Amino acid sequence: MNPPTDSRTGHPDSSDGSNLSDLSDRAAVPSRSNPADPFVAECIAALGASNVLITATDMASYLTDWRKRYIGQARAVLRPGSTEEVAEAVRIAARHDVALVPQGGNTGLSGGATPDESGTQAVLSLGRLRAVRSIDPANNTITVEAGCILAEVQDAARAAGRLFPLSLAAEGSCTIGGNLATNAGGTAVLCYGTTRELCLGLEVVTPAGEIWNGLRGLRKDNTGYDLRDLFIGAEGTLGVITAAVMKLYPQPAAQVTALAAVSSPHAALKLLELAQGAAGPLLTGFELMSDFCLELVRRHFPQMRYPFAQRYPQVVLLELSDNESEAHARGLFEGMMETAFDDGLVLDAVVAESLTASRAFWDLREHIPLAQAEEGLNIKHDIAVPISRIGHFIDYTDALIAAAAPGARMVVFGHLGDGNLHYNVQTPEGGDARAFLNRYQEQLNRLVYDSVVAHHGSISAEHGLGRLKIEDNARTKSAVELGLMRTLKQALDPHGRMNPGKVIGGVR
Amino acid sequence: MNPPTDSRTGHPDSSDGSNLSDLSDRAAVPSRSNPADPFVAECIAALGASNVLITATDMASYLTDWRKRYIGQARAVLRPGSTEEVAEAVRIAARHDVALVPQGGNTGLSGGATPDESGTQAVLSLGRLRAVRSIDPANNTITVEAGCILAEVQDAARAAGRLFPLSLAAEGSCTIGGNLATNAGGTAVLCYGTTRELCLGLEVVTPAGEIWNGLRGLRKDNTGYDLRDLFIGAEGTLGVITAAVMKLYPQPAAQVTALAAVSSPHAALKLLELAQGAAGPLLTGFELMSDFCLELVRRHFPQMRYPFAQRYPQVVLLELSDNESEAHARGLFEGMMETAFDDGLVLDAVVAESLTASRAFWDLREHIPLAQAEEGLNIKHDIAVPISRIGHFIDYTDALIAAAAPGARMVVFGHLGDGNLHYNVQTPEGGDARAFLNRYQEQLNRLVYDSVVAHHGSISAEHGLGRLKIEDNARTKSAVELGLMRTLKQALDPHGRMNPGKVIGGVR
Repeated sequence: MNPPTDSRTGHPDSSDGSNLSDLSDRAAVPSRSNPADPFVAECIAALGASNVLITATDMASYLTDWRKRYIGQARAVLRPGSTEEVAEAVRIAARHDVALVPQGGNTGLSGGATPDESGTQAVLSLGRLRAVRSIDPANNTITVEAGCILAEVQDAARAAGRLFPLSLAAEGSCTIGGNLATNAGGTAVLCYGTTRELCLGLEVVTPAGEIWNGLRGLRKDNTGYDLRDLFIGAEGTLGVITAAVMKLYPQPAAQVTALAAVSSPHAALKLLELAQGAAGPLLTGFELMSDFCLELVRRHFPQMRYPFAQRYPQVVLLELSDNESEAHARGLFEGMMETAFDDGLVLDAVVAESLTASRAFWDLREHIPLAQAEEGLNIKHDIAVPISRIGHFIDYTDALIAAAAPGARMVVFGHLGDGNLHYNVQTPEGGDARAFLNRYQEQLNRLVYDSVVAHHGSISAEHGLGRLKIEDNARTKSAVELGLMRTLKQALDPHGRMNPGKVIGGVR
Repeated sequence: MNPPTDSRTGHPDSSDGSNLSDLSDRAAVPSRSNPADPFVAECIAALGASNVLITATDMASYLTDWRKRYIGQARAVLRPGSTEEVAEAVRIAARHDVALVPQGGNTGLSGGATPDESGTQAVLSLGRLRAVRSIDPANNTITVEAGCILAEVQDAARAAGRLFPLSLAAEGSCTIGGNLATNAGGTAVLCYGTTRELCLGLEVVTPAGEIWNGLRGLRKDNTGYDLRDLFIGAEGTLGVITAAVMKLYPQPAAQVTALAAVSSPHAALKLLELAQGAAGPLLTGFELMSDFCLELVRRHFPQMRYPFAQRYPQVVLLELSDNESEAHARGLFEGMMETAFDDGLVLDAVVAESLTASRAFWDLREHIPLAQAEEGLNIKHDIAVPISRIGHFIDYTDALIAAAAPGARMVVFGHLGDGNLHYNVQTPEGGDARAFLNRYQEQLNRLVYDSVVAHHGSISAEHGLGRLKIEDNARTKSAVELGLMRTLKQALDPHGRMNPGKVIGGVR
């Protein structure tokens, strides 16, 4: 139940900013917190000694974020076992004026779940709230506690003949509570939406230590302000999500995947329009991969099979989820590709002939970030722009980067159907990665985010702000919007005790 | 551009509570407001005299809600022509401490857009903000101003080869701003979601008269608190929505409708599960109609064709939206119905053979509330429960009503696929409707809402709280939830000037 550290082998494409672990100085970790600390003593009385961690060894895995950018310290790590105990822990922290950092699987990519370096904060781990409280197949809902691992929620749905479509890199270790707190995205947003759109109801412990039971499994409910969506995506700064009612779907009869080679992102966009027109909501995946992305995979994972006889500028991965049959899905693909060939949109295409072949296509996609890591340090951005502007965004920003950092190699891929790209910059071939990053990282981040803003986009499509992007967000958002955010924070958490220093700074 | 009064002939099934217009005493209307009123004078200077209505005649259509339950008075009706003018009007009202009542098409069913009887409030009509600002087919988005009529948004989408799926009774006169403020539902929620789920971004004038430009057309954006969903459904009590970015979809190649006769709501639920399994997201409509509903249609609209040779306890209307072809949709239906017959689930079924036949099936459904009005005064409820509990809810609540009000006739129909029923009570055959309502209305409202709460449902599925349901909401919601709502209202509108007395009472 501890946040996993080494075992995560998912798609790290979702990370952004550079992997700078070896650039940071590791802070000295105190050997243990003080058990005579009256806050700790009260927590032990409420939660039991085994659920209040205070030694450096016990706390270690909770204090460092997944990318090892932030190495924090804590007064204690609290591991309540129920919603009531979460509420009790929040009330104890309030009495002692201790700030709390809620934490799920600790797989976040923006440092939102890591305590700061002061040693005054306490981590509030939701890891022991693991129950699937109920599943209602006829209502297509599942009620789960915040600490449920995403893969377990998927499994529970499957066992009831249903699909829980949220799927992302860290699904083997991230928790649904963390998915909700960061409004996670992943590979199935095109048809099913983000975590926000998959949630019908929440249970939340407020900063005052009260329990809000909003666990409603309703498709329609208009009886007041939308509290649910205020807590979703707030990264634990407005309260602690302890349970949720999530939407389920019928299991599709078949999922079929195809790869289509196209000449440019512009052509990929035309293919997206064609595919959505032909398949409508059956189109559940549409991922873009540039040739250089696949070249990196060829270079570092030569055993992976590249399905085309020659290289092409861009390759699109398409996925159909079909409630009828595999034959029907394959027929749809074939008709679609025929039109695309006739229109000169697609240069080459291959439809997976088996589940194994489908899996192999996804593997290609998922090995891009792994190959990129093998290639060396790089600069990552998780951005979104209106889908119609993606081609222009890439052309425009690529040109700026080429001028600013000659020789930089662009590694661009991602969820094109959602307008969400991993727009990453690799050092010039054979260059010194660390020197390149030291010289260019800040400049290129600013350049990319300014281009995102000019294209009416988002500087964090699916990873949240955490601690990493607060300054960039403050620089790129309007004063009115930042003011509204501060008003909400002040109203709901007037003492600034919930995850201070995340999402918006300066409150505590 | 005035809110229409007589021309609305849509499906009034969406009304709830009783039609009590003839039970109310019409308040005396003053002949005109005072043009020397310094607030009015300042509004005239900012908006022009023709956009500040002060005579009783000019204001009349803005002061009474659609169901004529609330007959208000106003200091003036303001009709700004741009977002800047809305902001200016809000700032003028703040300086004079005048409360504002935002109003779209004035078709709301809970009295949320009507001023109170004091004559101190001003109506802020969004009717002149009518522009379709832009449409981006490749991004599947349309940016519209709040005063756009819903049907015009549908038309603009269609002209660009796209579908804007929101569809409801008042679509010929309601505005998108009002749809957003009330999070309207309608007949296409099953696949496309409520207005909330169709919205990507908003422009809002805050109670301080600032303009928040959140007009982002992004599928993924995690850069702070979800302000958008806070304003959606808040019925103008937290700010004024002036424009929105809404989602569009590919136009389906065909929409095909079928009617299926079943023995009970329980059987209808089983059919829903079968249909969703077979058609997945292609199932875009699933409406329930009891035999007594159709009996009322036969009685009052004898020219309407009833498609079955005999009567059945319940009839379900199913709609498929297909991106392939009509033939494919019809084939899907036939396969589905065959299984349903084999399972003994469906007693009889007919698939529409033409667009005209499809339309006729929807007409039957839409004539139920009209027939109910012909039958006389009645008590209406717009409720939702988890889909799995609908059968039990109907059995349980019907029995309670039969015991409490012997002879009462149940008129139960609605959006079964969303768990949303119009659960209406008609007086006993040949009874005195007014006497029945006077005796039973309050008791039956309470009985129904208590049953809704016991079934973990919502007392207002798609109409909001407005002024009508504040007390019932306060009675049935937790203190924690009401407290959070008040905290938000207090934080965003500390002077209580935005639509006071709606959604939550007691702030001003």
